[in-house]
Amino acid sequence: MAKDKKTPRPKAETPKGFRDYFGAQVSQRTEMLRNIAAVYHRYGFDPLETSGVETVEALGKFLPDVDRPNEGVFAWEEDADWLALRYDLTAPLARVAAQYRNDLPSPYRRYAMGPVWRNEKPGPGRFRQFYQCDADTVGAPSVAADAEICAMLSDTLEAVGIKRGDYVIRVNNRKVLNGVLEVAGLSGDDKEAERGIVLRAIDKLDRLGVNGVRALLGEGRKDESGDFTKGAGLDAAAADVVMGFMDAGRETGAQTVARLSDLVAGSSVGMEGVQELQTIADLLSAQGYGPDRIVIDPSVVRGLGYYTGPVFEAELTFEVTDEKGNPRNFGSVAGGGRYDDLVKRFTGQAVPATGVSIGVDRLLAALHATGRLDATDQGPVVVTVMDRDRMADYQTMVADLRNAGIRAEVYLGNPKNFGNQLKYADKRNSPVAVIAGGEEFDRGVVQIKDLILGKQLAENATLEEWKDRPSQIEVPRAELVDHVLRMVAGQQADPA
Amino acid sequence: MAKDKKTPRPKAETPKGFRDYFGAQVSQRTEMLRNIAAVYHRYGFDPLETSGVETVEALGKFLPDVDRPNEGVFAWEEDADWLALRYDLTAPLARVAAQYRNDLPSPYRRYAMGPVWRNEKPGPGRFRQFYQCDADTVGAPSVAADAEICAMLSDTLEAVGIKRGDYVIRVNNRKVLNGVLEVAGLSGDDKEAERGIVLRAIDKLDRLGVNGVRALLGEGRKDESGDFTKGAGLDAAAADVVMGFMDAGRETGAQTVARLSDLVAGSSVGMEGVQELQTIADLLSAQGYGPDRIVIDPSVVRGLGYYTGPVFEAELTFEVTDEKGNPRNFGSVAGGGRYDDLVKRFTGQAVPATGVSIGVDRLLAALHATGRLDATDQGPVVVTVMDRDRMADYQTMVADLRNAGIRAEVYLGNPKNFGNQLKYADKRNSPVAVIAGGEEFDRGVVQIKDLILGKQLAENATLEEWKDRPSQIEVPRAELVDHVLRMVAGQQADPA
Repeated sequence: MAKDKKTPRPKAETPKGFRDYFGAQVSQRTEMLRNIAAVYHRYGFDPLETSGVETVEALGKFLPDVDRPNEGVFAWEEDADWLALRYDLTAPLARVAAQYRNDLPSPYRRYAMGPVWRNEKPGPGRFRQFYQCDADTVGAPSVAADAEICAMLSDTLEAVGIKRGDYVIRVNNRKVLNGVLEVAGLSGDDKEAERGIVLRAIDKLDRLGVNGVRALLGEGRKDESGDFTKGAGLDAAAADVVMGFMDAGRETGAQTVARLSDLVAGSSVGMEGVQELQTIADLLSAQGYGPDRIVIDPSVVRGLGYYTGPVFEAELTFEVTDEKGNPRNFGSVAGGGRYDDLVKRFTGQAVPATGVSIGVDRLLAALHATGRLDATDQGPVVVTVMDRDRMADYQTMVADLRNAGIRAEVYLGNPKNFGNQLKYADKRNSPVAVIAGGEEFDRGVVQIKDLILGKQLAENATLEEWKDRPSQIEVPRAELVDHVLRMVAGQQADPA
Repeated sequence: MAKDKKTPRPKAETPKGFRDYFGAQVSQRTEMLRNIAAVYHRYGFDPLETSGVETVEALGKFLPDVDRPNEGVFAWEEDADWLALRYDLTAPLARVAAQYRNDLPSPYRRYAMGPVWRNEKPGPGRFRQFYQCDADTVGAPSVAADAEICAMLSDTLEAVGIKRGDYVIRVNNRKVLNGVLEVAGLSGDDKEAERGIVLRAIDKLDRLGVNGVRALLGEGRKDESGDFTKGAGLDAAAADVVMGFMDAGRETGAQTVARLSDLVAGSSVGMEGVQELQTIADLLSAQGYGPDRIVIDPSVVRGLGYYTGPVFEAELTFEVTDEKGNPRNFGSVAGGGRYDDLVKRFTGQAVPATGVSIGVDRLLAALHATGRLDATDQGPVVVTVMDRDRMADYQTMVADLRNAGIRAEVYLGNPKNFGNQLKYADKRNSPVAVIAGGEEFDRGVVQIKDLILGKQLAENATLEEWKDRPSQIEVPRAELVDHVLRMVAGQQADPA
């Protein structure tokens, strides 16, 4: 007779590029998103939650032109359709704005927060599921809507704990760039290839530096490996205009606007863009958002290819130490801008829209970097079990503590080894352990052990200043809650 | 020459069985989950968030035995692996408990909340993505852990707004059923088929009634269509024991336990189950959770097939009106129990676990049914635009209102048609509209329109009691915030 084939045990692993979030990693993000939502709500934005799954057709960017349309998305076939996990929160907004266009208020202000999925090669710190947090206004053509998003972004950063002075929101405008391209002689239909080269070159300013970009604007650039990238073929004067655009930032917004006006003189779209920047600056200034918070900055090039009007980026300006030990600015945590054709794909009708997306993980990392968030959550008070027949008594102690608002639990593992119970409390980062055996029950008392103080004493046994504060005290059972409250308060008051 | 082929426009639709959540539907659920998390946290549970995607291998229940392992899950192939969307929050917990078994505290108390996906035929009110909210204790063999989950469930229901008396948590035990099966002569290895028939029959008590179940315990049952279902073949005495089990509920827990003891006398596993029910009742009673909140109830049969020890179910006992206009109890909103082999699949080592899952949508529906939640959110105060050159002034009004904590926005659509602005405010459920044109700016005043009162007056023009309260007032610009605050407060005080 054949032996039973044993199924091999499954591997207990996340798929590559996915991860788990534990404890404070979850609760701190939840709390941050709650603070963000409160600001968005006050600005009149309504929450929208779409499902994680969309038709590939509705997602759009990844239309099926091959057998399996999983370029960048996780997709699968269902009957005749392809379904996919959303890769951002904007594509679902476009679908919603089209699907409910007769029911939604117009303008439609909505915010959305949740996971998105990217079918990309995972790398260190790069995950295939991550959170986005977006706010968009659909159907508002006025740049007042863009200005509002910038003001809201500023309020949001401060609401989650980024101090004024530690961030700046930079505003630029795609139309100014279009004006620059026109002045540089690249506005014709036959110049699309050259415009693409210029846009890509501008986008690489950080990486290639001024000379590298300049080379790409002209004949082309040979990189370190010897590979040659063809340039846009601009003459020196035209290249000067483009380079001047990126370098047009001046002391004040008025001076920057004046410089940009000079650069795009003669281009109507360029002047329109300059005028929009001026209007945004005026509107924000009237509401008290000065250049200490929001600035006109033509060096913002990220997203210029995608957006059609104003673009903005929130940068954290405080220094952190990079992997090599060098100080650098924390950098960008949010970006956005105005984009057209959001709904047009579906309905044929153009609908103007503008919005911002916050990098949730980046912003959380920033709050950790500024010391606004602890890495760990405080654990529960642990009521230990000396006598397992007294479980009802231990549970009653726990109930009393919880009813007083104290996070608490009874030890529910095997109570035989008392040391394991204290190790458990240590692993949970518990502030206090409660101990009571038969002898304590007979006398109507409990022992309360200050685990934080205990840890500090263990590290430095001669700690003078705590000599008069014992790490374990005996108190009447009836005073358990009062004493635990006092002990936890004492821990929080310590300059530890 | 061939004409350009036009790409047909994509359909703006959610995939079948998926839906969108708007406004209050999102914020009310978020708020409810926050209240639940606060209770879980106080009980010492830590949040865990796993990703939506798991390997099919780790999910387990749906191992690939066919080419496409999408029985009940959304799955797709990646290289040699199959990936799938999680179908519940328990399978990922099992994977996490195995993957991090050397790092996690033991017992591990965790809660999780988030969407899960089921690849099922959608139907009215049945969606393929929905929220679950679970709490589980892994590695605690004692029924004190089960008792704690019941107490926590009770606290949770009250924390979200279900009044005491409007719910009951019923507790049963799979081991008692095992004892009943033993007494009925169905404990042998060769009786597995019969045990399955009995379990399925018990599970259908609601639908088939006592006579239907009784028939299935005996020779079998012919349904209305004439189809015959083979029974378990129990004799009358054995069938009496099984029927007696489901009907063993008595006035008090002690009487129920005594009755169950009689039924399973002679079965050691049965007596163990009865003893566990007794212990749970004692522990809960010591903490003040009496039978007004948690009861021993052998009629709880849901989940008896899946769980291995205590099972519990939270039922809301208030009446609602069903589709046919008949009153009925609201019914179950949460359930759970003790289950083994959670981690064993992965590691070979048995780990005891117990937990509860709350039906998020059901519980939200219950809060609506009890009038605890409004269907709509209050909209923002809308500052209308009479003169588009004054946008900075309107934005400043909005900033003042927001800084006072008032939800407010300026109208950002095309301001030409003033009627559209008021229609917009109406669609947003706005409490107040602010109106100022050139003439008001010259005199330093604004108009404030009470939109709630306006609506009431429109419905009943002779409303005497509001005669002295005009629906629109003119106030100095400097007093805008004060007057809006007063107007909103007045609306909330009205017995509308």
